[in-house]
Amino acid sequence: MPHELGRVQLVGAGPGAADLLTVRALRAIEGAQALLYDALVSPDVLALAPAACLKIQTGKRAGRTSMPQATINRLMLRLARRGLRVVRLKGGDPSVFGRVGEEAAFLHAHGVATEVVPGVTAASAAAAQFGFPLTHRGEARRLLVATATVGEGALAGGGWAAGADPETTLALYMGRDQLAAVAERLIAEGRSPQTPALAVENAGRPDARAIPATLASLAADVAAAAPDGPVVVIVGEVVAQARRLLMPIICTNRTAVGKAQA
Amino acid sequence: MPHELGRVQLVGAGPGAADLLTVRALRAIEGAQALLYDALVSPDVLALAPAACLKIQTGKRAGRTSMPQATINRLMLRLARRGLRVVRLKGGDPSVFGRVGEEAAFLHAHGVATEVVPGVTAASAAAAQFGFPLTHRGEARRLLVATATVGEGALAGGGWAAGADPETTLALYMGRDQLAAVAERLIAEGRSPQTPALAVENAGRPDARAIPATLASLAADVAAAAPDGPVVVIVGEVVAQARRLLMPIICTNRTAVGKAQA
Repeated sequence: MPHELGRVQLVGAGPGAADLLTVRALRAIEGAQALLYDALVSPDVLALAPAACLKIQTGKRAGRTSMPQATINRLMLRLARRGLRVVRLKGGDPSVFGRVGEEAAFLHAHGVATEVVPGVTAASAAAAQFGFPLTHRGEARRLLVATATVGEGALAGGGWAAGADPETTLALYMGRDQLAAVAERLIAEGRSPQTPALAVENAGRPDARAIPATLASLAADVAAAAPDGPVVVIVGEVVAQARRLLMPIICTNRTAVGKAQA
Repeated sequence: MPHELGRVQLVGAGPGAADLLTVRALRAIEGAQALLYDALVSPDVLALAPAACLKIQTGKRAGRTSMPQATINRLMLRLARRGLRVVRLKGGDPSVFGRVGEEAAFLHAHGVATEVVPGVTAASAAAAQFGFPLTHRGEARRLLVATATVGEGALAGGGWAAGADPETTLALYMGRDQLAAVAERLIAEGRSPQTPALAVENAGRPDARAIPATLASLAADVAAAAPDGPVVVIVGEVVAQARRLLMPIICTNRTAVGKAQA
């Protein structure tokens, strides 16, 4: 066992297209000897790792088993202590719903240095791909990034009022199964049921799909489209700009879907 | 004049370090024949454009004149109609406070196709560089991105309550001159004056500087540090994780500052 305690890079893989990696993330992946990756990391990105690199999927996608966090932590530690260049790869930006705080704290406590490489988050990728901004003068003064959960979840407490504010663009990560409850609650808090919404499956990837809706129709429209990949939902007036641009490629009936321009 | 109506790429330059560009942004810059760039775009990024590329700064930094939006729009249009490969380069992610909606709508109305290339936003860069997450289990359920303005500004209406919520990480872009008023208002709305805060100058660049504070001391601490570059301010419990990691390189007195590890 070498003397050095090792080092782990916690790297944002961005939305999935290989050319939406940062140059720094690309170099980290190309230099990796061990890669621990989330299920949200795309095959295009994984293909950039060296053939000899040890690749370990840590989960997790809805319905499949995922590795417990404690197991992931111990695995990173063991690989780093072997002296390997370890890359922990997460979809999007590791600082946004990526548990990077927990993993960095664990490694730090065990004397392993960490470096975090930021990435493009899903909301930015969806906005860029479908031609709408996340903030817009006189219309969307701020952006709230949350997960689509209710009860004791992400919007509990002050989050509901914030999400109901008409000048806030709301980006909902994960939890698409709870969209009906989230929309109902936002409407009860005062957000207009007619607020434009856009669910984007595989945001930032060539096979991205946009599901246009209103806040009121969101849950039904997403259920009808039956997305298979990861979904980010954007709620806010800004989404109307996407509709205009998508007009040529998206039908206007409520369950219609459109392919992104590659 | 060529027949084609031209094309403009609206490109996120990320936080400033050249290797935090996405691969797609790097290719766009390397292929640009005309580059219109905001003052927040770093010299390291601009240096990647071809020598023969026409480079035009559109402003704006505090205290300096900037080009009116209408002038920028007309300029992009003229260059695109000349058949040039035009890149409109913005610091961070163009969809977040980047006026991409206005510029894309103008170009679209004039028959010019646009493509938006997303980038790493300043909050993600600051978090990665100084070792704290933007969301964290049981502590920070959501992220609110806003500008530090008062009155009719970015936090008017529902934004104040959202920013005051203890489980929300608040990322404040621009407007550092209004930090005293913003902090006062957030405290009045119920956010603890002792909430950790971190102002980061030149986030994501090798010369980044972190200014640790509390919500109550934020305005005075930032004023004392007299930052010259762009500043993003993060308010929330997550910032305490940065403090722990920064301990070796940041003094603990209230005006102390620290250099990021390169």
